[in-house]
Amino acid sequence: VGITFETRDRDGLARIGRLSTAHGTVTTPTLLPVVNPNLRTIEPAELHRMGFGMVITNAYVIRSKPELALRARQEGVHKLLGFPGPVMTDSGTFQMYVYGDVEVTNREIVEFQRDIGVDVGTILDLFSTPDRTHAQARADVDGTVERAREAVPLAGGMGLSMPVQGSVHPDLREACARAYRDLPAVVHPIGGVVPLMEQQRYAELAEAILAAKRGLRHGRPVHLFGAGHPMMFPLAALLGCDLFDSAGYGKFARDGRLMMSWGTVHLADLEELPCACAACAGTTPAELWAMPAAQREARIARHNLLTAAAELARIREAIRRGRLWELVEERSRAHPSLLSALRAVAGHAEWLERFEPLSRPSALLYTGRETLRRPSVLRARRRLSERLTFPGAKEVALLPARGKPFSSHWGMHWAPARSRGLALACPSIFGPVPLEADEIWPFSQSVELPEDVGEESAPWNHAFASSHDLALVPVPPELAQGGTEGFDAARVRATIEYQFGREAAGPLLAGKMDLVKARNGRIRNVLVDGEHILSIRAEDGLATLRLPGARRLHAVAPPALRVTVTDDAIPFVRDGKSVFARFVQDADPELRPFDECLIVDARDRLLGHGVCLLNREEMLDAERGMCVKVREGVGSA
Amino acid sequence: VGITFETRDRDGLARIGRLSTAHGTVTTPTLLPVVNPNLRTIEPAELHRMGFGMVITNAYVIRSKPELALRARQEGVHKLLGFPGPVMTDSGTFQMYVYGDVEVTNREIVEFQRDIGVDVGTILDLFSTPDRTHAQARADVDGTVERAREAVPLAGGMGLSMPVQGSVHPDLREACARAYRDLPAVVHPIGGVVPLMEQQRYAELAEAILAAKRGLRHGRPVHLFGAGHPMMFPLAALLGCDLFDSAGYGKFARDGRLMMSWGTVHLADLEELPCACAACAGTTPAELWAMPAAQREARIARHNLLTAAAELARIREAIRRGRLWELVEERSRAHPSLLSALRAVAGHAEWLERFEPLSRPSALLYTGRETLRRPSVLRARRRLSERLTFPGAKEVALLPARGKPFSSHWGMHWAPARSRGLALACPSIFGPVPLEADEIWPFSQSVELPEDVGEESAPWNHAFASSHDLALVPVPPELAQGGTEGFDAARVRATIEYQFGREAAGPLLAGKMDLVKARNGRIRNVLVDGEHILSIRAEDGLATLRLPGARRLHAVAPPALRVTVTDDAIPFVRDGKSVFARFVQDADPELRPFDECLIVDARDRLLGHGVCLLNREEMLDAERGMCVKVREGVGSA
Repeated sequence: VGITFETRDRDGLARIGRLSTAHGTVTTPTLLPVVNPNLRTIEPAELHRMGFGMVITNAYVIRSKPELALRARQEGVHKLLGFPGPVMTDSGTFQMYVYGDVEVTNREIVEFQRDIGVDVGTILDLFSTPDRTHAQARADVDGTVERAREAVPLAGGMGLSMPVQGSVHPDLREACARAYRDLPAVVHPIGGVVPLMEQQRYAELAEAILAAKRGLRHGRPVHLFGAGHPMMFPLAALLGCDLFDSAGYGKFARDGRLMMSWGTVHLADLEELPCACAACAGTTPAELWAMPAAQREARIARHNLLTAAAELARIREAIRRGRLWELVEERSRAHPSLLSALRAVAGHAEWLERFEPLSRPSALLYTGRETLRRPSVLRARRRLSERLTFPGAKEVALLPARGKPFSSHWGMHWAPARSRGLALACPSIFGPVPLEADEIWPFSQSVELPEDVGEESAPWNHAFASSHDLALVPVPPELAQGGTEGFDAARVRATIEYQFGREAAGPLLAGKMDLVKARNGRIRNVLVDGEHILSIRAEDGLATLRLPGARRLHAVAPPALRVTVTDDAIPFVRDGKSVFARFVQDADPELRPFDECLIVDARDRLLGHGVCLLNREEMLDAERGMCVKVREGVGSA
Repeated sequence: VGITFETRDRDGLARIGRLSTAHGTVTTPTLLPVVNPNLRTIEPAELHRMGFGMVITNAYVIRSKPELALRARQEGVHKLLGFPGPVMTDSGTFQMYVYGDVEVTNREIVEFQRDIGVDVGTILDLFSTPDRTHAQARADVDGTVERAREAVPLAGGMGLSMPVQGSVHPDLREACARAYRDLPAVVHPIGGVVPLMEQQRYAELAEAILAAKRGLRHGRPVHLFGAGHPMMFPLAALLGCDLFDSAGYGKFARDGRLMMSWGTVHLADLEELPCACAACAGTTPAELWAMPAAQREARIARHNLLTAAAELARIREAIRRGRLWELVEERSRAHPSLLSALRAVAGHAEWLERFEPLSRPSALLYTGRETLRRPSVLRARRRLSERLTFPGAKEVALLPARGKPFSSHWGMHWAPARSRGLALACPSIFGPVPLEADEIWPFSQSVELPEDVGEESAPWNHAFASSHDLALVPVPPELAQGGTEGFDAARVRATIEYQFGREAAGPLLAGKMDLVKARNGRIRNVLVDGEHILSIRAEDGLATLRLPGARRLHAVAPPALRVTVTDDAIPFVRDGKSVFARFVQDADPELRPFDECLIVDARDRLLGHGVCLLNREEMLDAERGMCVKVREGVGSA
């Protein structure tokens, strides 16, 4: 089918996507406002003008009203709604949940959706409520997957939406998602979660989403069915949800409830409107009360939509800047159940870390102890412990937290300290960071933490040291100023070890090292035996490989740093062309998004090097799109 | 002078005020946009239409331009600016800080402000930067106070603004504030803090504000000079700041910077505008870039003002609902320096507790460990420990956290448990709460905390029990269902002890108790020997006194629960009229805002009872306004 989903940027599982159908393209994460065919609080054309490029309506409701069904069959759903963009439909599953049953079969509703020209139509899946036992939920999943299989040959040109069911049983959510891997769905909703959202059971919701994400093919858009409150958008986006939909903007408006990014406020409780939106500015609650009900309702509905749109824009901007986790931390203070959910998510940090970009310049602010459970903090702690543990030193002097940045103050002491077997380290939330690594992200960020984090990180710094048989000692006052000899080389080595692993430093640095420095004294280019092997980036202190460096790295045993491509890709990569999904045969499971990587053929011959956009499991899953942006091919250099 | 400041509502030190001058009234906390007489990004009349009822401009700048000075003298400052509401002016102090000196004396600039008809004029105080030594800052303070004294006879009908200086030295801030107690200022700015704000040294800023607040007369409006970024409004309001001012909305706009409640974003970094405000909705960064600079600047300035106005409305709504601390917790996640500041504020919880209302229904959400340091949590822990410690029990069974509310599940077990010396308790962040107290705020809230707080509160529950020589035991499975005999009486007693102290229960309850219950089973009215002594409020489980109850409470030794009034107030209070500031002679230092209190004369004769709006130090400080809202006078009953 002609429906595509392309990832433009990412931040962990979250992504900026472009979902395209014959009727247009929307940038995700986004909200599909629900259009009720019987009751239009806001006209669909106005929704489009407000920037909502795609809507969802209910095919079952249309089909149940003969006059609507007839018009839909004759004119198509776009004309029926008066909406020019992509239209998705739901199938009656929710009505089945509310009323117990519906008078339509899966086959009938899929065909009806196809016939009225919807862009993305949903199978009649089995709504699996949170109170279903494991056995009941398994039956829901089996029945749902069977209906998905039945729908495939009926869909025609319509894209199929196949919801993931499984109630609150993570194994069933994952199994349902896995069963869809080889079916041609264009959207995967997480279904059956409305009761969880209504009861603000966000921790269970997060577990359900994560279980589904583990099973689903990476790269397909995920829709959180019935999610329309902006207060939970950041969390859902963080977990990799791309689409939201809800009739909430109108329903809340009818009750006089205003959605805010931090929760809901009722008009009756307000003396003034705590909102700058175009629907609220300059208006008072008293003036809203004085309006006719329909007019007030439309005003509040517009407020609800504008608020949702702004929060989605903030989320997309946060993804682009690698700051979504921080936004979720901020929002998690708005309600205890969101905080519970964040803590539940942090319990999956080990898995989430695989999707976490290697570096996001300046994107690690400390916002409370929850920060310490971030996947990127987990990784930094692990790499610090495994790769940067002060070889040759028996004692470590923790520098005083004042006087940052550390190296500009303490660099002169590095050489004399090392000559007596003493390492200098910066205290941090990751443990003691070697002075020579203090410009590597995120260590470069951690030294800007507020003073009082000291208390929290002190035990960690001590535990770290003792687990590596190091004595933490005070800074010796008699440390002579002895110059920085060897400090630059140690910096380069630390960068390589942190980024490529301990075993990479030997082959990369064998020979005579020369450095090109920027005017501010920071290392820019590293040459070995006259060859430019890598550059150090100012923004994150990490290395950008050059081809001579890639050749040297290639000496490290596979699968380290490799992306292996099929033979038909060989000439293209050698020429410097990027690697697309269908050419990837395998990859190093340790590669992370935005890591530098080597591209090799099946016989491990080096073809080029580049930046991977995906991790191994994502590359192997991807149905289309770029996996590695190649910097240089061996034939193009 | 005819300038008044009236407090309408409060939440700790924060308050909703009404500042009135001859030109109008503004509701505080509010922002006074800075109007630059030479450069008007937004016309003052438009500011007024946008809802900014008061502005600030610079008298020194006006005076320095002969043509402006002449017009100002002839037409008055309101006409010069084209602004109908109250106008405040600054004096040139900031220019002295920026340029080193100004060509005007304190006398000249005070007289000039008076002559051009400003509502609130500022003395030429000495800007005391954060780097001033203690001795230097003391000289700044002495010089500033001297100038304030000099200004008093010069002010005429103009209200005087007397800034608190003292750099980062809390003792000097407090001393400066104290020196103003008997001078007739209508506004007290916190001065010299712009460098702290520019460097985001919010913890030091908070300390400076708190030190000033300790010294200032409660009841006078406090202005945070130069504070214009909405990201710090909630914190400043929490510390009792009522007025803000800044030229930032325009300055930021010139640099393409958009103020957000959570920080600043630069237009150049954005692909889309994460904002729903009337100036942003429907616009893209690309469209803003395409505009002429002046038009773009005005658009962004409007955005900055709308954002500030919405945040201020949110703050005022939070104060009205007793939720400002929660808003500050949420905002403190937006930047580490705000979190540092919140932690610094929490270090003053002991003092802040005195200003904390006794109860704010449903306003204690757990948003992280910082919640545990709230003044209201401190108080609840202390009262629990001192007043509700399971008399007669040696063992306490902590009920499982599931199955809330506790009393409806466990009430039937209360009597048999007590008969064997076992108390039943709800685990909470305050310690084990007796089952009979579980409907008292905030204990009624704490049981709704998220599950995972359990881990954090467990050590506290154990420490609490062991400090009271109680054994924490599991719930005995054999606990027979024995009815709830005595449970209601225990509830009433717990409420009285929590609210009025241990010694109050005896006199209040001596006699035969009868209860009137609501249909849902909750206790409404408590009668003893046929007299209605108090009612229990549904919203917070606390008592509203009735006159017979007040008479009984009066048996508790003074100063407990007393507000003592001067003799000339006796007939009014006996008649049920409220108590105003000038009649208060003394009060129980343990009274808290919204506490029930007894009103007595100097010989401790009971005149009536009521609800106090202020604590003792506020009552003694207040220059005008209501201190106790009297419910019943002994003569009116």
